[in-house]
Amino acid sequence: MSWIDVTYRVRAAPHEVRAIANALALEQSVEVPAEVIRDAFVAEQIVGRVDAIRDSGDGTHLVGIRLATATTGGDVAQTINMLFGNSSLHEYIELIDADFPPEFLARFPGPRFGIEGIRALVGAPLRPLTCAALKPQGLSSERLAALCHTFALAGVDVIKDDHGLADQAYAPFAQRVAACQRAIERAHSETGHRALYAPNLIGSPKALAAQARIARAEGAAMVLVAPAVVGMPAFAELVADQIEVPVLAHPGYAGAARVVPAFLLGKWFRLLGADAVIFTNFGGRFAYSEKTCADIADNARKAWGHVRPAMPLPGGGMSVERSRELIAFYGADVMLLVGGSLLIAGDRLQERTRTFVAAVHEGAIAPAS
Amino acid sequence: MSWIDVTYRVRAAPHEVRAIANALALEQSVEVPAEVIRDAFVAEQIVGRVDAIRDSGDGTHLVGIRLATATTGGDVAQTINMLFGNSSLHEYIELIDADFPPEFLARFPGPRFGIEGIRALVGAPLRPLTCAALKPQGLSSERLAALCHTFALAGVDVIKDDHGLADQAYAPFAQRVAACQRAIERAHSETGHRALYAPNLIGSPKALAAQARIARAEGAAMVLVAPAVVGMPAFAELVADQIEVPVLAHPGYAGAARVVPAFLLGKWFRLLGADAVIFTNFGGRFAYSEKTCADIADNARKAWGHVRPAMPLPGGGMSVERSRELIAFYGADVMLLVGGSLLIAGDRLQERTRTFVAAVHEGAIAPAS
Repeated sequence: MSWIDVTYRVRAAPHEVRAIANALALEQSVEVPAEVIRDAFVAEQIVGRVDAIRDSGDGTHLVGIRLATATTGGDVAQTINMLFGNSSLHEYIELIDADFPPEFLARFPGPRFGIEGIRALVGAPLRPLTCAALKPQGLSSERLAALCHTFALAGVDVIKDDHGLADQAYAPFAQRVAACQRAIERAHSETGHRALYAPNLIGSPKALAAQARIARAEGAAMVLVAPAVVGMPAFAELVADQIEVPVLAHPGYAGAARVVPAFLLGKWFRLLGADAVIFTNFGGRFAYSEKTCADIADNARKAWGHVRPAMPLPGGGMSVERSRELIAFYGADVMLLVGGSLLIAGDRLQERTRTFVAAVHEGAIAPAS
Repeated sequence: MSWIDVTYRVRAAPHEVRAIANALALEQSVEVPAEVIRDAFVAEQIVGRVDAIRDSGDGTHLVGIRLATATTGGDVAQTINMLFGNSSLHEYIELIDADFPPEFLARFPGPRFGIEGIRALVGAPLRPLTCAALKPQGLSSERLAALCHTFALAGVDVIKDDHGLADQAYAPFAQRVAACQRAIERAHSETGHRALYAPNLIGSPKALAAQARIARAEGAAMVLVAPAVVGMPAFAELVADQIEVPVLAHPGYAGAARVVPAFLLGKWFRLLGADAVIFTNFGGRFAYSEKTCADIADNARKAWGHVRPAMPLPGGGMSVERSRELIAFYGADVMLLVGGSLLIAGDRLQERTRTFVAAVHEGAIAPAS
């Protein structure tokens, strides 16, 4: 038998935290009062255990709980349930991290491509990568494809759908993906640079499967999926069953203020098979700190058993001007995502995109101080 | 064209809230700066609009945003994305509510059975209903079935799996469901009372479909599903495609502190097809207020176009002793869920369960003052 070591942050007075930790261990395992447990197997091998309590000195405590791996049944949905099912409903509890034992980890392939596979596809073994987004939604497939063409001409590595592009009437999925993929191919024949297009797969499991088939048939070299939007179990199954290209994970609906982003995005989405993990960069329009971003990138890339490194993909209010600074911060194993900061250039979009591409390619050689 | 009226709670200083509201309207629709929008269709029919800002006088504001229905593509996943995709990442923003236009609502069946259908199955047209849970996990299928038998003998209406029961080695789904359903049938032949057993369906979409087939083949009269655990799009599709009995929605992983429970559980889970909505009762081991619970129950039951009322199912630290109080609070259209408060009786489980059943049946006639 083996245990998952889970860490929670609990806001509580020092004299209350022990009782809360004990309740948390019961809640996330057997969900009955301790005195109900009469069965020796349940008492010894199933009930969660309080492992450690550490006062953080700021009104919160880090509480370590050991949960029996057997309770997960090796299933993604049930693991989510065990880690933070009921306790997600307590406002004073945050899920911080989980360390999985080898027995558990072995059930998950993690990224099938990861950093190395993405680099091989892009054809850039060492330098940081570039990414641009097709938006705003509401544009026709033709207009989005024109945008895609411009980005590809300017030398962007990966061009992804905005996560708001779904299967809407004004740019239906099948039509849009075909048009954007053709735009990529056209730019390739014009310049010799082949950008990779990542359509956004979004919907119920059946819709996801249908979209995956279309993306494959059109030759899309990557896909974008938001695991928390489509549902994390559906995400993992989609990746395993339907996707043969690298997967970019979008953070939408991750509500990461209650589950620490370094765990949810950096570790968990990676374990479920994301080859690149999008997150909102510090100093952009979201409030993540430098430390949060560094932690996400660390979790995405660090050695972790057989689980391949996933590519950090910071975005969310990024600007072209910050390319060098961010390469200095993240290092070369990064893909920089710029959205509105390019589109704001209007008719000078291609020129501004070229500036972005050049800044990233050069930033790898001469990082900002 | 039509609009969804979404309400957010924003923690911000009065002089900042207008700018935040404008940014929120852009973030949840086009996700580009306003000056990027050059297309008339996008500007007029796609960009979100700030409808109203109301100071709540406690450091927060209620911000009303109108989002174009067209942006959802009529899809569950994309609707989640539009309502709270990126903005869920902001700690200072909560999703409070959404009013859907008839055009949108018409795409969702909502509960297929609802309060009326559950009452018909139970054979109790007016009185409050009872519910008990099979736990703790770690028990064998045989032991869980024995528990099920005891509850059924004692006259409980609905006996549900604990949400922690999945497809674990110690009580595999198929074996457990068969054993528990047989226990129900045996109690029926012994007493004439037929309890309804609701197995917990949990897993990836394929596993959910397989479990639904087993539950159907065994004759389970209800099912339990946690929409936020299995993924809300997968939940909606499962209900539509695979389930022919009433569905109880469990709140696990709903992280309802960031999305107001009255919306997420009472309204959204109902719209996706939950016939009964489980939520953590006030005064139990979760911190919901009376008002929160009343709001959930109101949203679950109130008239809402073609969408059938869903049964409120308060639980989570409920005690037998509170049955009358809660019937006075919720009225008769309620199913009371008692878990540990029964199991703590140990060998006197059947007697205590009978007390619970009697208290609920009587509570309907003589509610507490």
